[in-house]
Amino acid sequence: MTRPDDQQTAMLPPMKWNAWGDPAAATPLSDGIRALLKQALGVDGATTPDLEAQDVELRPSALTDAHSDRLAQIVGAAYCRVDDQARLLRAGGKSTLDLLRRKDSGVQDAPDAVLLPGSDDEIAAILRYCSDSAGRREGGIAIVPFGGGTSVVGGLDPIRGDFSAVVSLDLRRLTELHSLDEVSGEAELGAGLTGPEAERLLAERGFSLGHFPQSFQFATIGGFAATRSSGQDSAGYGRFNDMVRGLRTVTPAGVLDLGRAPESAAGPDLRQLMIGSEGVFGIITRVRVKVHPVPAATSYEAWSFPDFATGADALRAVVQTGAGPTVIRLSDEAETGVNLATTERIGEQQITGGCLAITAFEGSQAHVESRHAETRAVMQAAGGTSLGEAPARAWEHGRFNAPYLRDSLLAAGALCETLETATNWSNVPALKAAVTEALTKSLGESGTPALVLCHISHVYPTGASLYFTVVAGQRGNPIEQWHKAKTAASEAMMRTGATITHHHAVGADHRPWMRDEIGDLGVEVLRAVKTTLDPAGILNPGKLIP
Amino acid sequence: MTRPDDQQTAMLPPMKWNAWGDPAAATPLSDGIRALLKQALGVDGATTPDLEAQDVELRPSALTDAHSDRLAQIVGAAYCRVDDQARLLRAGGKSTLDLLRRKDSGVQDAPDAVLLPGSDDEIAAILRYCSDSAGRREGGIAIVPFGGGTSVVGGLDPIRGDFSAVVSLDLRRLTELHSLDEVSGEAELGAGLTGPEAERLLAERGFSLGHFPQSFQFATIGGFAATRSSGQDSAGYGRFNDMVRGLRTVTPAGVLDLGRAPESAAGPDLRQLMIGSEGVFGIITRVRVKVHPVPAATSYEAWSFPDFATGADALRAVVQTGAGPTVIRLSDEAETGVNLATTERIGEQQITGGCLAITAFEGSQAHVESRHAETRAVMQAAGGTSLGEAPARAWEHGRFNAPYLRDSLLAAGALCETLETATNWSNVPALKAAVTEALTKSLGESGTPALVLCHISHVYPTGASLYFTVVAGQRGNPIEQWHKAKTAASEAMMRTGATITHHHAVGADHRPWMRDEIGDLGVEVLRAVKTTLDPAGILNPGKLIP
Repeated sequence: MTRPDDQQTAMLPPMKWNAWGDPAAATPLSDGIRALLKQALGVDGATTPDLEAQDVELRPSALTDAHSDRLAQIVGAAYCRVDDQARLLRAGGKSTLDLLRRKDSGVQDAPDAVLLPGSDDEIAAILRYCSDSAGRREGGIAIVPFGGGTSVVGGLDPIRGDFSAVVSLDLRRLTELHSLDEVSGEAELGAGLTGPEAERLLAERGFSLGHFPQSFQFATIGGFAATRSSGQDSAGYGRFNDMVRGLRTVTPAGVLDLGRAPESAAGPDLRQLMIGSEGVFGIITRVRVKVHPVPAATSYEAWSFPDFATGADALRAVVQTGAGPTVIRLSDEAETGVNLATTERIGEQQITGGCLAITAFEGSQAHVESRHAETRAVMQAAGGTSLGEAPARAWEHGRFNAPYLRDSLLAAGALCETLETATNWSNVPALKAAVTEALTKSLGESGTPALVLCHISHVYPTGASLYFTVVAGQRGNPIEQWHKAKTAASEAMMRTGATITHHHAVGADHRPWMRDEIGDLGVEVLRAVKTTLDPAGILNPGKLIP
Repeated sequence: MTRPDDQQTAMLPPMKWNAWGDPAAATPLSDGIRALLKQALGVDGATTPDLEAQDVELRPSALTDAHSDRLAQIVGAAYCRVDDQARLLRAGGKSTLDLLRRKDSGVQDAPDAVLLPGSDDEIAAILRYCSDSAGRREGGIAIVPFGGGTSVVGGLDPIRGDFSAVVSLDLRRLTELHSLDEVSGEAELGAGLTGPEAERLLAERGFSLGHFPQSFQFATIGGFAATRSSGQDSAGYGRFNDMVRGLRTVTPAGVLDLGRAPESAAGPDLRQLMIGSEGVFGIITRVRVKVHPVPAATSYEAWSFPDFATGADALRAVVQTGAGPTVIRLSDEAETGVNLATTERIGEQQITGGCLAITAFEGSQAHVESRHAETRAVMQAAGGTSLGEAPARAWEHGRFNAPYLRDSLLAAGALCETLETATNWSNVPALKAAVTEALTKSLGESGTPALVLCHISHVYPTGASLYFTVVAGQRGNPIEQWHKAKTAASEAMMRTGATITHHHAVGADHRPWMRDEIGDLGVEVLRAVKTTLDPAGILNPGKLIP
């Protein structure tokens, strides 16, 4: 494979081509988990070796030299990469399907080149060039925007559509803190900043964004916006779309700068049309977000509920009374039983019977105390028993680790994936039952028992999200096996009136359900916006819009 | 004029053709106000008589009999009105410009007919018929949706655009409470329900919506959604767009049902594209909103601050710490000086020097106590002096009365209007100064001093709205006089980076500033959505989209 020089290496995504996260952070399965796998699923845990990047046979780049020379002129030769390493590391996201595909010793697909623009102007020039490319004899070029590479819905699949080639547009060089208005609590952040980079820059000035999805360590500001991300502290700080006060989208048709005020009645809120647009309308290059002073105080409390229904009613009461926790979540009996909420203790002695709930509070000392007291009173009145702060702190400590565990489970011959949805409170029981049954039935038909674990990950006054973790044995072709189970779960969501995704976005994988989600006319609206902003259709073909 | 029968009378809007609100609620100016007018503005207060509806010369209906027969077949003869009374009462909104125009003894314009459909199907049939009308020899028909008739931005102007006729589509028959999910706290409300009607239906089941804009008594659920309304309790319950969980829009291209979950990552939030669409994309016929139990407890406290800057800093601290009032607002020195916040005491002895702030709290007893205590601590620390609860209750008592006062001022020879905007906290002083100066200068050039009063009406963590009330003497042609002043104020908003409207919407009056607001490309996006949903362009020509 091509050997990039040092300058180029710095421009590589930090994750391995075929695994989540920092390779150094990957940990083997504990004895407890191995015992659980064997006992519950008959998975013997023999680890199959990964396919190393240097052994991968990669589909040759389809980008012509003429095209790559011109693109290199726009971004500089160092930032137009056609080497295998650069391409392979942008081959896709990190869903279980992605990782299973990368265990295949056959030819792997990848973008035909990687561009790393350093400015909005360079991005505009790339969009112009690729838009014009459709009519050229060298063939047209599609673009897949790339942030942290953490998509779990096929959002980064190198789909060429009607084009001859597809390039990955990696935004990691857009790492500027453009401005911080300390009075208003508003920061303008470059789209390429990762979660930790953004928090570090803000912390230097005493501020925090407070957006902590599980992908936090790798995902980017632009990605959060493009996918309508929601973080684990959403009860306190809102979803990412609540945090966005303005954003710039560079499109083939020009630049769209939105957000002249925190809120406005000047027509539809076009910010909310760009948030969640997943790179099909344009490239989000900078985002103005609400930030807050680094909290002066924090407090934690874990709770036990006799069952999921009682716990869910308690969470509902907390959010409907506006009690004000920063974090609140509830594991069901199965998830509590395997300690999934506190990843480092999986398979060990249970923290509690029934269902474990976590609460955390942030703010001034007085604020934290009053919110904690009010939340505690509601939780107690609703049948909760306090477990003190230790399990809540353990949850926080391991909050970003689950994907590593998933990778180890896949390697050990288990099938493991997560999926998520949301619905009104009154529909939570029906939705939970329907998805659980669909997964269990589909995987059962493939010949394996399945552990279906669930937690309420985000709450709203009118409803909540349900986050499912599925563990089963791999049977036959595990890609087909999971595809069937996922389809069954998705259909169960649609049947029960829920949304196809609460915070993972649409990408290629959820696209078949977009017509159920927004109707044929909603799809026509998205198409109309797409045609206006990206008339040549170069941006992320095969994603989001069916 | 035509004399409608009783059944038809019930279908008339409750407001007079040329004045705000309930005619019975109109009150003459107090001696205090008369003295103030004379002293400050040289307005002698001689009341000019209104032009009564029966004396109005109305532009004859341009709707052909063929068209009105067909439309009557769709809605029923009783609900297709071409009589002068019905038309005149939908002639426009209630801005100062609207009311000044209605003092003119010349020919008044009005929609050519009024349709009162009773169902989504009838609305769909009307849209089909009017869309097809463009090609007919009788001429095409445009539609102006009509809710409570409270627009103050020309949103109801009977603009025909390229069409031969325009009909008012009055939604007052859509008054159903379609459903109430008491567990989830979500109600589906018919678009034609007024604020009080919706609250009454919900209160019967123990719930409340909590949306109280100044237009509350007359405006409708559909209107709140179509204009991105914001109520006086927005600190506690959010803007109307925060309350909407789903909505149905009947468009010429079909029906758009949006909102499968409280929040979703399934692409852009198309709900936020319909909210604020002001009838140019379709007719919003039902809205699913977040509701809450009628609060068990309330508390009130008014505050005095030495000056506006100190008070604004206090409000900012309250919202940025998340202290949690339901209502919080701050009058500037001038507004405090004339007691405008408590309309019944205008011109009497001042409640306080400096600046008056109002806070109110709603929820459970414990919730109210903790929020009030935290807010009080922040207000005190920021330099506020408590005035107890009386002025806050007085504000609440008179909270919907200001428009009546405006009408009396107009009749007495004063010019009076309000305008509003929003910006980041750091920009509040510059925006306030710029708008005040623009208004004072423009009105000064017309030969009158001007009282420019201002309050912060809505707060967000990153910024606030500024709501201005202007009182001056009428000079020359008061329509031209105000148009110039309003233009100067709007340009000041644009120059200082603020939004053209925080909660009054765009209509015809703010349309010239939409390109500044969202850019040429944003306008193209709106046009693309418009063309998809309303290909014949029959819906509200001349509104919102420039």
